[in-house]
Amino acid sequence: MPLLVVGSVALDSVETPTDRRDNVLGGSAVFFSYAASYFTTVRLVGVVGEDWPDAHTQLLRQRSIDTEGLQVVPGKKTFRWRGKYLPNMNDRETLEVHLNVFGEFQPKLPDSYRACRYLFLANGSPRLQMSVLDQVPVPRLAVADTMDLWIREEREDLMRLLRRIDGLVLNDSEARLLTDEENLVRAGHLVRGMGPKFVVIKKGEHGAMFFSEHETYVLPAYPTEYVVDPTGAGDSFAGGMMGYLAARDDFSPKTLKESMAYGILVASFTVEDFSLNRLQRMERSDIDIRMEEYQRMLSF
Amino acid sequence: MPLLVVGSVALDSVETPTDRRDNVLGGSAVFFSYAASYFTTVRLVGVVGEDWPDAHTQLLRQRSIDTEGLQVVPGKKTFRWRGKYLPNMNDRETLEVHLNVFGEFQPKLPDSYRACRYLFLANGSPRLQMSVLDQVPVPRLAVADTMDLWIREEREDLMRLLRRIDGLVLNDSEARLLTDEENLVRAGHLVRGMGPKFVVIKKGEHGAMFFSEHETYVLPAYPTEYVVDPTGAGDSFAGGMMGYLAARDDFSPKTLKESMAYGILVASFTVEDFSLNRLQRMERSDIDIRMEEYQRMLSF
Repeated sequence: MPLLVVGSVALDSVETPTDRRDNVLGGSAVFFSYAASYFTTVRLVGVVGEDWPDAHTQLLRQRSIDTEGLQVVPGKKTFRWRGKYLPNMNDRETLEVHLNVFGEFQPKLPDSYRACRYLFLANGSPRLQMSVLDQVPVPRLAVADTMDLWIREEREDLMRLLRRIDGLVLNDSEARLLTDEENLVRAGHLVRGMGPKFVVIKKGEHGAMFFSEHETYVLPAYPTEYVVDPTGAGDSFAGGMMGYLAARDDFSPKTLKESMAYGILVASFTVEDFSLNRLQRMERSDIDIRMEEYQRMLSF
Repeated sequence: MPLLVVGSVALDSVETPTDRRDNVLGGSAVFFSYAASYFTTVRLVGVVGEDWPDAHTQLLRQRSIDTEGLQVVPGKKTFRWRGKYLPNMNDRETLEVHLNVFGEFQPKLPDSYRACRYLFLANGSPRLQMSVLDQVPVPRLAVADTMDLWIREEREDLMRLLRRIDGLVLNDSEARLLTDEENLVRAGHLVRGMGPKFVVIKKGEHGAMFFSEHETYVLPAYPTEYVVDPTGAGDSFAGGMMGYLAARDDFSPKTLKESMAYGILVASFTVEDFSLNRLQRMERSDIDIRMEEYQRMLSF
């Protein structure tokens, strides 16, 4: 089944302790789409300015990502983010954010997108996320991401969103912020109590936890020796996960757990280089080889 | 096979954000022994002062822990530690340490202990750890723990120890300190290069990583909803791990991975109450039930 995603499309500038890249392809919807494209066809909804290199659009199209929903707004600039990773490569400092055209983004779905049954609401305000939900009449599975900014500043809208979605993906510090609970197991269940049928807490280099009414589990990250740039890891995780679910057209507990593992593995490739560089050199068979290693690692 | 452990025997005072206990049974060799006793017979080497309640010794003996090697020194006081956990229940502050009789401890193994083939050198200076190694003529498997104090202040002795042991167990911050390397996968291999055939990095609530020449893997912690007191979790992990290896009298890659899982599960019980309280209410069958859940959690 095709998979619809709405989120940020950005030009990122990234500093790590040993290297840097300026104005490279980034944004939540971009990492998500590219990761998901290894599993299913993707329909991207986003907005960019006239500074957006067409080569980036071509790169996405080459992987069968439908970019009809990517608006290019003349006279405006693309969302830009500049950040710097600390030596632990897990924590980062945001040095600059220019929302630019993304700040006024009012997504309008192409008619061809409205029949999508699998839907991911990547980074964006809860109001923006709900406006997309309103345009998809009968989603089979609607999952959203959120971030500290919306938890702090648009909590009421976020709570409304949570009652309308099937799943929420957020990271550990966001789960703690949202619930005021330090223990992640309790935090996960508290978030589930806010509406979604399942909750995924991403723990960066430590993997991800899953919570539903009947199941609580944690899967570790794939041990990665050379982390070059963690930017986009969380969105790649979500892309791998949702891509697999949409491809299978199933979200039984078994398929959900498999999808978590695929998300973890796609993210383990993303962090091995800047931007989409590593994913561009990756084939579906590389994921499957790593999946075999991962399953072997977890069986005893 | 019986398992020999040398390490601290202590009276702990612990504050958590919601509760506290004063002068309760603790110490690395105590948590280790009690955890290991679910798998094999244990021979404890340690030292206490005349303030040591005999009831504590009886508690250990009830689980077939041989306390012939526990010296009681008249006119001296037992090692005391007082600490306070931060709200995240992972980080802690040491408020007071009184080494007391443990500061001058020169372990002398009872003759009946010298034939032990499985050996764990728990918390203690590398020099103390080596003096125990010297007294065990032919260990089959010698594994040690270490801590930041020895890495900082007795590095040369520690490096000598590392060349004499089969395995080292240490936590993530200690691995980073020892290797000056932030990435735990690289850090694990660097520690292995210092001598031990295998290295285990404990990551607290995030599980543990294993490194040998041919294998690198990570197993997550069992997701624990109610963490009452994390004190002794690392020593319980080591006790479960080594207890299982000694019981099996085997340390093939397969058995080592199983032993890691047992270590993780025993530790998941330890943190559910203060001191040894939860382990005292635990039976071997409880571990096996949790093991079934854990294996189900990791299979897909």
